Amino acid sequence: MNTAAVCSDLILFGTAGDLARRKLIPALYQLEKAGLLHKGTRIIGVARESKTAQEYTDWVYAQLEKFVTKEQIDADVWQRFANKLHYCAMDLGDCDSYQQLRQVIDSDADDAERATISYFATPPALFAAICEGLASVALNHESARVVLEKPLGHDLASSQAINQKVAEYFSESQIYRIDHYLGKETVLNLLALRFANSLFTDQWSHDRIDNIQITAAEQVGVEGRWGYYDDAGQLRDMVQNHLLQVLALIAMEPPTRLDAQSIRDEKLKVLRSLRPIDADNVADDSVRGQYTDGFSGDTKVPGYLKEEGAAAQSTTETFVALKAHIDNWRWSGVPFYLRTGKRMPQKRTEVVITFKPQPHNIFHETIGQLPPNRLIIRLQPDEGVEIEMMNKVPGLGQRMQLQPATLNLSFFKAFENKRIADAYERLLLEAIQGNQYLFVHRDEVECAWRWIDGIREAWENSGEAPRGYQAGTWGPAASVTMLAQDGREWDDEI
Amino acid sequence: MNTAAVCSDLILFGTAGDLARRKLIPALYQLEKAGLLHKGTRIIGVARESKTAQEYTDWVYAQLEKFVTKEQIDADVWQRFANKLHYCAMDLGDCDSYQQLRQVIDSDADDAERATISYFATPPALFAAICEGLASVALNHESARVVLEKPLGHDLASSQAINQKVAEYFSESQIYRIDHYLGKETVLNLLALRFANSLFTDQWSHDRIDNIQITAAEQVGVEGRWGYYDDAGQLRDMVQNHLLQVLALIAMEPPTRLDAQSIRDEKLKVLRSLRPIDADNVADDSVRGQYTDGFSGDTKVPGYLKEEGAAAQSTTETFVALKAHIDNWRWSGVPFYLRTGKRMPQKRTEVVITFKPQPHNIFHETIGQLPPNRLIIRLQPDEGVEIEMMNKVPGLGQRMQLQPATLNLSFFKAFENKRIADAYERLLLEAIQGNQYLFVHRDEVECAWRWIDGIREAWENSGEAPRGYQAGTWGPAASVTMLAQDGREWDDEI
Repeated sequence: MNTAAVCSDLILFGTAGDLARRKLIPALYQLEKAGLLHKGTRIIGVARESKTAQEYTDWVYAQLEKFVTKEQIDADVWQRFANKLHYCAMDLGDCDSYQQLRQVIDSDADDAERATISYFATPPALFAAICEGLASVALNHESARVVLEKPLGHDLASSQAINQKVAEYFSESQIYRIDHYLGKETVLNLLALRFANSLFTDQWSHDRIDNIQITAAEQVGVEGRWGYYDDAGQLRDMVQNHLLQVLALIAMEPPTRLDAQSIRDEKLKVLRSLRPIDADNVADDSVRGQYTDGFSGDTKVPGYLKEEGAAAQSTTETFVALKAHIDNWRWSGVPFYLRTGKRMPQKRTEVVITFKPQPHNIFHETIGQLPPNRLIIRLQPDEGVEIEMMNKVPGLGQRMQLQPATLNLSFFKAFENKRIADAYERLLLEAIQGNQYLFVHRDEVECAWRWIDGIREAWENSGEAPRGYQAGTWGPAASVTMLAQDGREWDDEI
Repeated sequence: MNTAAVCSDLILFGTAGDLARRKLIPALYQLEKAGLLHKGTRIIGVARESKTAQEYTDWVYAQLEKFVTKEQIDADVWQRFANKLHYCAMDLGDCDSYQQLRQVIDSDADDAERATISYFATPPALFAAICEGLASVALNHESARVVLEKPLGHDLASSQAINQKVAEYFSESQIYRIDHYLGKETVLNLLALRFANSLFTDQWSHDRIDNIQITAAEQVGVEGRWGYYDDAGQLRDMVQNHLLQVLALIAMEPPTRLDAQSIRDEKLKVLRSLRPIDADNVADDSVRGQYTDGFSGDTKVPGYLKEEGAAAQSTTETFVALKAHIDNWRWSGVPFYLRTGKRMPQKRTEVVITFKPQPHNIFHETIGQLPPNRLIIRLQPDEGVEIEMMNKVPGLGQRMQLQPATLNLSFFKAFENKRIADAYERLLLEAIQGNQYLFVHRDEVECAWRWIDGIREAWENSGEAPRGYQAGTWGPAASVTMLAQDGREWDDEI
């Protein structure tokens, strides 16, 4: 594994776009600040607009000022960073214009051997053209890598088409598919939690675990992108990638090594073991919802169909709850409840692992039923780990009054207020270093789409519309019912 | 189980003594304050000195002012409490004088049926006389109970003699042997931790646990009681009772019910399974020490043999470390390391449970050896529970840098600054209510003595003197070596 800073050219296709401005450029600045960019690194912004190198540099500074919050731009770091910036105006769809890119790459290049990393921060419709263009100027050589941003397709077929096209020019070992959840510190900590702590490793199965919940709740609505969102919906936008990736990390067998092949193989096995949700069980194992008028905090907000730019009719779901089953030896009988939605009461992403209850209760005189232990892994907003366990309440009144209390580890506090790196910093660093373990394999993407497509198809065939839920609530009541039928409930109170 | 306040007479033999003044009288006041003493309760102080009822009441008030710290004496509570106080001057060794006690009991008694609880806060040499005296005035009736304070003997023979004598007048179900550790909130919480949390219940055996350490460190020396202490030593004073009781609670099989018989049966089974420490293994499995000149904090303090009142020579141990084995199915191969001493660097009582290490380390590139998980139960000074587990250190520098972090539950903080009841409050309340589960059965006491006597005998036969250790350290180096030979170390860093 490479961990030292390595020399490379990073081509940022779509540098003028939202992702690049908000995430990639600030992330690269942070890598520079942390001394993790090799001195010889070049960052080549690519966009359609004509700009001089100086104009681009000024523009990058303006983006940093806007999107690097919580700190001032450091003058020295900026100077080092600015020296790495280059710009190339081109029409990505025009194969000839890649010659210009080649010129930028060739001009003032030293003799150092360097990797070429092309980051596709563009709509996927352009991926094929970019691949073709790169190949036309021999930028798909052995030391070339491409980083692909989501969405990688709209369904299995379109995903396969994209993957197939990219595969014509790059081998799988050169392709880095981003799921930014995999760059989050707490998601990485999942690996540490599971595989560095015998307290959990030994209990990580149907023997000891009752059920697992994965919630990714957003407080926002569609944020002015109604048209874009309406084509996707929450199932495609959140479940196909982020939630299934988290599920795979939670559920996978222990990998033999901490490398790309071991981890991705194990994740893939989980995805392949997902029981299909189809016509037979879609009514029992899924709930889709669409928000109606309601509140975001104290503010009145319009329903999904009344958002700016909304069509009068749409059956796109803004909420989805699923009961997933992993049909393998480890997880037999353990439901994985997935839930994600817009306009929820709060922004919260967490994994809640509920252990099996005690088989016998010696405290029945003071507590009728013993609540089970729970391990809560919070991914946002306040990253941390909690264990809920029963303790005796201090005091004399009752002989053995019990109450759940929480053992808490706030990531931020535990590690002396260390800055938590943004996911894109981690992922850019790994791409530069050529480590694929936090990127998604083609087989994973396609396996996930196959499962998701099955659910969509079943929904469409059912003829039922999404259920309404008031903005600012935890989704349709049916989501609660889905768990209640199993004698369980969502973890909403934390 | 009785939990309502019940009407009773509480006879406090030795009311003028240290224990009564410092612990029992304040504890009874707290029970009054908490509304846990029945209105008709009478507290009858017994001592040699002649006092009027009013003088005794005034004296009790003075003790409360001195020993109820952290709060003011509440006037209303005091009024209710004072109304319950009675006094009886008598010579405990004089059988005739128990008539006076009987008179106090009979005078102004209502018709309510009431238990008579005799608390023997006297030297054990008087126990026989008190029993005889009580019997002579028929105060050993069916509703009579006796509460016995330690030390219950000096060895098995003397303990049997005391138990035998008391048993002539009271049945085992009437005898409440105090080990005040069993009244501590955190010790009770051990029961909750073990049996209300499947996270631990399922791991509580040699399958998952590597070793268990029980430390009871005192910062003080002999505190002016050299002569008394020198007759006992740390093994008798701390291990025979407190440490073995904690060990028994930690190691016992899950009791079927939370009652005296179930719990005491299980504790007894543990004590019976203790592997003897004798001539064969005493050198490997025990260390005894005696402190020499050193420091308590920043203060220079004299060695044990230079304390006020010390003899020139003494082989009494002020420190003992033991490697105990419980030869049963659950604990085969798991050492229980016990350690207690005077003039340690700090006052600390804790149980540290170290789980087995991970069988395979996928993080070897960044961490050579994975530290095991630990569960730490602090009994004092800051009562609480901690879990030490490995987490990923936030940051970009290394791909997967791990570090132990602690999930913490401070009892005091977790329960909204609820007052932690003193052990004697709990124990007096249970004695009044007639619940024996926190009191020690005769069989337990005698079984513990048998094990302790074996160690003493082996020490004496070895002819070796205790090893010196500088006051203010963690005992002789041999204590460290004892664990090092097993590839382990004491948990001193917390």
